[in-house]
Amino acid sequence: MDYRPTSRTTPTRYRDRARYDRDTVHRILDEALICHLGYLNDGRPVVLPTTHARLGETLYLHGSTGSRPMRNAGEGLPVCVTVTLVDGLVLARSALHHSLVYRSVIVLGDAHLVDDPAEKSRALATLLDHIAPGRAADCRAPNARELAATAVLALDLVEVSAKVRDGGPVDEPEDHALAHWAGVVPLRLTAGAPIPAEDLDPATPAPDYLTSYSRC
Amino acid sequence: MDYRPTSRTTPTRYRDRARYDRDTVHRILDEALICHLGYLNDGRPVVLPTTHARLGETLYLHGSTGSRPMRNAGEGLPVCVTVTLVDGLVLARSALHHSLVYRSVIVLGDAHLVDDPAEKSRALATLLDHIAPGRAADCRAPNARELAATAVLALDLVEVSAKVRDGGPVDEPEDHALAHWAGVVPLRLTAGAPIPAEDLDPATPAPDYLTSYSRC
Repeated sequence: MDYRPTSRTTPTRYRDRARYDRDTVHRILDEALICHLGYLNDGRPVVLPTTHARLGETLYLHGSTGSRPMRNAGEGLPVCVTVTLVDGLVLARSALHHSLVYRSVIVLGDAHLVDDPAEKSRALATLLDHIAPGRAADCRAPNARELAATAVLALDLVEVSAKVRDGGPVDEPEDHALAHWAGVVPLRLTAGAPIPAEDLDPATPAPDYLTSYSRC
Repeated sequence: MDYRPTSRTTPTRYRDRARYDRDTVHRILDEALICHLGYLNDGRPVVLPTTHARLGETLYLHGSTGSRPMRNAGEGLPVCVTVTLVDGLVLARSALHHSLVYRSVIVLGDAHLVDDPAEKSRALATLLDHIAPGRAADCRAPNARELAATAVLALDLVEVSAKVRDGGPVDEPEDHALAHWAGVVPLRLTAGAPIPAEDLDPATPAPDYLTSYSRC
């Protein structure tokens, strides 16, 4: 079942780019390494980059214990979480038809601090596996002190929309004869070979999930 | 001269990661392809991805004419503009020392709609050249109707900070003997070969600024 569009998740322009199906939304959330978390601090907007991870229909966010609004999110913190993947540049013959190939998701709602230690452990493992699938089982788990010092926010995926812009440039008919090159420059995030920590025993092999790392 | 730290741009944690020098801030803003723009809509935070470009100490943002708060930004729209570059994954032996190698900039202030047509033309050229340096001179410039239909926001670079996290993992001494691999997986945005539009004359060569495209 699709997410139900609301007035806030219905675009006023480029409506054909909006998507509400769970598969599209989940894929974008799962592929994007980080999100941008917007909330209010003293009535003004703040946007912080942070890591996120989806578990079913819950989005977990790595919070900051240094942020007062986040520390007080017990009653629910109004947030907007935005995730954006840029897949290319769109070069048109005319200036104003330039664009990007992109996929984005916006999640609106009230985020809550995760208090329950079992849920927090599970959320942190999900956040780790989001960064590198398999990593949560291949490192030392948090102890009670570390868990207590970490803030995790949870946000239900209810008011959600995706926006997808793909394909090449769409120029005005009268501009087609212009001599400017038009098309797409594809972009992707690529991983290099893992670089061992200076203090790592050189006999320790890099795990497969890192040597073949890819977001999609 | 550095940007002057304020209570809002002074982190409460990891203070050694904060940077206020213009060179660091400018490089991050110039390298990042997009930003995330936070503002209020009916008292709730909204975060939209958009393109930005710096001209001296002014940050221009491609605005949406479909957004009521942006259309009404004549009096000044309180915003937070955040730009984030992810340069790698940091894998530690312990779960909670995992991190990312990243560089980010946060700009706080009141954005204004650019009304003056000459400034708007200049801003749009800057936004195009931010995406692909040299492109503004190599496409059809906007006409008066197109200019009028486009919203550009301007934000002065005054309340600004950068955050830079580099280097490898920092594990607890007692965790160094654990057998888990630790280190960094470098990440970068890479461009593929330009793909011509289907309706492009095949004799049109792709320009150098696209065949050798790189953000840094």
